[in-house]
Amino acid sequence: MVIVIQCKDQVGLVAGITTVLKDKGINIISMREFVNTEDKRFFVRIETTESYAADMIEEELKAVLPGDAAIKVNPLPDKKIAVLVTKEYHCLSDMLIRNYFGTLGAKVQCVIGNHTILQELCNKFNVPFHYVSHEGISKELFEEKLISTIQQYPCDYVVLAKFMRILSPQFVELFAGRIINIHHSFLPAFIGASPYRQAYERGVKMIGATAHFVTNDLDEGPIIVQQIIPVNHAFTVADMVRAGKEIETAVLAKALQLVLDDRVFVYKNKTVVFE
Amino acid sequence: MVIVIQCKDQVGLVAGITTVLKDKGINIISMREFVNTEDKRFFVRIETTESYAADMIEEELKAVLPGDAAIKVNPLPDKKIAVLVTKEYHCLSDMLIRNYFGTLGAKVQCVIGNHTILQELCNKFNVPFHYVSHEGISKELFEEKLISTIQQYPCDYVVLAKFMRILSPQFVELFAGRIINIHHSFLPAFIGASPYRQAYERGVKMIGATAHFVTNDLDEGPIIVQQIIPVNHAFTVADMVRAGKEIETAVLAKALQLVLDDRVFVYKNKTVVFE
Amino acid sequence: MVIVIQCKDQVGLVAGITTVLKDKGINIISMREFVNTEDKRFFVRIETTESYAADMIEEELKAVLPGDAAIKVNPLPDKKIAVLVTKEYHCLSDMLIRNYFGTLGAKVQCVIGNHTILQELCNKFNVPFHYVSHEGISKELFEEKLISTIQQYPCDYVVLAKFMRILSPQFVELFAGRIINIHHSFLPAFIGASPYRQAYERGVKMIGATAHFVTNDLDEGPIIVQQIIPVNHAFTVADMVRAGKEIETAVLAKALQLVLDDRVFVYKNKTVVFE
Amino acid sequence: MVIVIQCKDQVGLVAGITTVLKDKGINIISMREFVNTEDKRFFVRIETTESYAADMIEEELKAVLPGDAAIKVNPLPDKKIAVLVTKEYHCLSDMLIRNYFGTLGAKVQCVIGNHTILQELCNKFNVPFHYVSHEGISKELFEEKLISTIQQYPCDYVVLAKFMRILSPQFVELFAGRIINIHHSFLPAFIGASPYRQAYERGVKMIGATAHFVTNDLDEGPIIVQQIIPVNHAFTVADMVRAGKEIETAVLAKALQLVLDDRVFVYKNKTVVFE
Repeated sequence: MVIVIQCKDQVGLVAGITTVLKDKGINIISMREFVNTEDKRFFVRIETTESYAADMIEEELKAVLPGDAAIKVNPLPDKKIAVLVTKEYHCLSDMLIRNYFGTLGAKVQCVIGNHTILQELCNKFNVPFHYVSHEGISKELFEEKLISTIQQYPCDYVVLAKFMRILSPQFVELFAGRIINIHHSFLPAFIGASPYRQAYERGVKMIGATAHFVTNDLDEGPIIVQQIIPVNHAFTVADMVRAGKEIETAVLAKALQLVLDDRVFVYKNKTVVFE
Repeated sequence: MVIVIQCKDQVGLVAGITTVLKDKGINIISMREFVNTEDKRFFVRIETTESYAADMIEEELKAVLPGDAAIKVNPLPDKKIAVLVTKEYHCLSDMLIRNYFGTLGAKVQCVIGNHTILQELCNKFNVPFHYVSHEGISKELFEEKLISTIQQYPCDYVVLAKFMRILSPQFVELFAGRIINIHHSFLPAFIGASPYRQAYERGVKMIGATAHFVTNDLDEGPIIVQQIIPVNHAFTVADMVRAGKEIETAVLAKALQLVLDDRVFVYKNKTVVFE
Repeated sequence: MVIVIQCKDQVGLVAGITTVLKDKGINIISMREFVNTEDKRFFVRIETTESYAADMIEEELKAVLPGDAAIKVNPLPDKKIAVLVTKEYHCLSDMLIRNYFGTLGAKVQCVIGNHTILQELCNKFNVPFHYVSHEGISKELFEEKLISTIQQYPCDYVVLAKFMRILSPQFVELFAGRIINIHHSFLPAFIGASPYRQAYERGVKMIGATAHFVTNDLDEGPIIVQQIIPVNHAFTVADMVRAGKEIETAVLAKALQLVLDDRVFVYKNKTVVFE
Repeated sequence: MVIVIQCKDQVGLVAGITTVLKDKGINIISMREFVNTEDKRFFVRIETTESYAADMIEEELKAVLPGDAAIKVNPLPDKKIAVLVTKEYHCLSDMLIRNYFGTLGAKVQCVIGNHTILQELCNKFNVPFHYVSHEGISKELFEEKLISTIQQYPCDYVVLAKFMRILSPQFVELFAGRIINIHHSFLPAFIGASPYRQAYERGVKMIGATAHFVTNDLDEGPIIVQQIIPVNHAFTVADMVRAGKEIETAVLAKALQLVLDDRVFVYKNKTVVFE
């Protein structure tokens, strides 16, 4: 059984929570607790050997926690996700393969592309592909179409797997805290367009990728995972793009694994990640 | 306040421990708990904002824990260590610098060398250096001299900072669980002598270092930290030795930081490290 | 144009080679040369802006090089490979995806499995899958069937993408220097079976993967790429296996990229890799 | 013998250079060549077994190279450096230790501090320490004093080992291409003051350090080495500063090793590094 809780901090939270478990004879095998002392915010993730009726545990936990507590007991192992793409295949392919072999930790409900390039790949894996073009229509209308397509499916998260359009505050608001993006640089370096071109011009010795939740501020959302790989003077922009695809794929995969495994908490503009 | 506990596992340990703290109004700001389910072994590390009389807390914790519990409340921030060296300066230098600037997390009580090469360095930092040669005497007598020198000082840990002699079971027994070694390979690869020569012959693409507690089985003790750095075909054995010094220094420094910060537990032939 | 040469070393090789190019007005934009001084062995890789008739260049290079020189001018960009698998999908999937999108640097001619689990995946990508079972027949006959299947296709390399059978010296001999394997440990640690179980028992703090050419000595062939990822006390064997798949996939992909890009030379039991 | 050359590119440079060597019976054991095709700029580094009179080789090389060629034959193995510091000890200590044991690849001529904190450390190693305060005087006068102190010694490079003052264009101009700085972030992220505070606020999952040549544009000079280490939500600003010292020390050490080993070329705002 997995229990994750976020609430404001106060003395005795762990004692209260764990006494509830002890009284039911439940043994904790792994526990991570963290308090953000600046914000007086409490985060905990508990793994137990025994399972128990989730709603009963949740009820009893509520009684020992502050009123604002967000509690998840035995969160669903298979979340449902929609994927937005443009033309690049690497992140989507990785997700489709894991989805097909049952190791993604989620079910890919649909893929929505503003180009048709990746349609055939989705067909191979019998994952619905929806073509929603942004051309010749307003951003507002484009997003309306995206939203109505996504909403055809139950959906826990929206993953931007190299979706190259900036989403409006309205869109972001609708899926607040549930949109995950992969950005092709080690943020906050190289915010915005053409990060590899920027990296090349600057002559950096490493390039990276950042998976983050999307907020209204472009490339400013809570960071989940960041990694880098070394580059050198011999890398052209094209070489960097190519090498970058590898790290982008790895970083998004890692971030999804952590989020889908309920190891990531968001508070204000940061994450707490119990790896 | 920091509390670290190791004992056999049973239901309700965390509840028992944290209720003791809660009843004193003590707030937990960071907590790591882990149960080795194979061995039914419980490990926890707790950081709190408030402090409290250590002996009183310890007394009350004993009452809620199994009889075999090893409890440390507010472990001394400045442990005392003896360092054994042969000829290489890199690990010792790093320790002496941190010791001098008060960031080692320990006090270097003395350095014992079976060569005199590093004596002058110790003198610079006013750290007692003892020359104990292994030449012309039995291993038994050599170790007797080491032991009597170490025992001139109160001493929590013995650090082998590139000490190139194998210690007898008797020596190891005397300081059981308190001897830390830096081995110049990513164990268990290249056990024994000349690991860089072995690495060169094998044509590996990375070299590494391993910090571990010393047991009677050579290079087989519980591993604390391991790291690697890439090498390539152009590295000679000498190049590997040179590059290896950097990673050896970094790995030993990291291991000491973790151990001295009471983040490392040993059970059987493994460690639990709450980084 | 790319030129790669391996031969015994002597004074004046670079001058000889580059004078041939200069006399044709060919500009070198990147050059890596290395001499193994122990073995007096010369390796060079040259990239030029201009192209030129490969056979003419090769003829002229022969005239300035020792008789044993292995010269490749403009090696074919798309090599042909056969892939051998058992049950695990991760390495094969990665290769099939790159193959499908034309970024593997090779054409996957066929996949041969001693189980049928991965057949459906190959079908999706229209890559011929051949089921060759090892059960109920001698190793000799099993390998005969493998060989006759492989030989239905032109084939530059045989990639063992988690093929869990040990190949005989006869098989290895037939494809000498052309078989690439991914081993699930940082060799030479954990040679042989169940490396993750071994790693778990030893309590290592990192696991790794090694891509190497296959020779008659199990897990002893020339290493192409090695990488590691950190693990900790909380990893079960199953967790290590899962994490290991990520690094195995990455390491094999990197090794294939280097080999297929003609950046890897083999001499005796080592590689020279001009990354 | 080591030969390094930078000049504008043209066809036949390598042939010209290596023919000079061949005619003297000199064997090349390692060679790295790179052409920046955008800028038509040629860079080469050659290692040979045999040595030869440097001035004669240089003379002959000039005859086959463009007029703008910068040629170094057998560059002095022990460069001379001045070190500027403020209060932090970690980078300076590392340099002083290597200097003392003869493995820095340079001689530390003097240390200049705008605080006296590090004076005693320098005294231990008999390295002249000069206290030049910036307080109560103009920046102009402060720099005049720095310059006149540095110029008391022959000096190839000025290393800013956590020197926390910004230097004027006049100062930079005087030591153009010879000032090396260690910046406490993975540039171009967190330019300017308090990068760790910025990193903390942004919630990044890694921190880094960048060694670069200093130009007039703050934190914009040619990058030599960059590395990162992972951090997480539990890191306070102070924790990041502490962890950052480790990576700062490692990155500066690596950069100095590369520069002092004549493996780094600067052209415009980038470096070519033949590692």
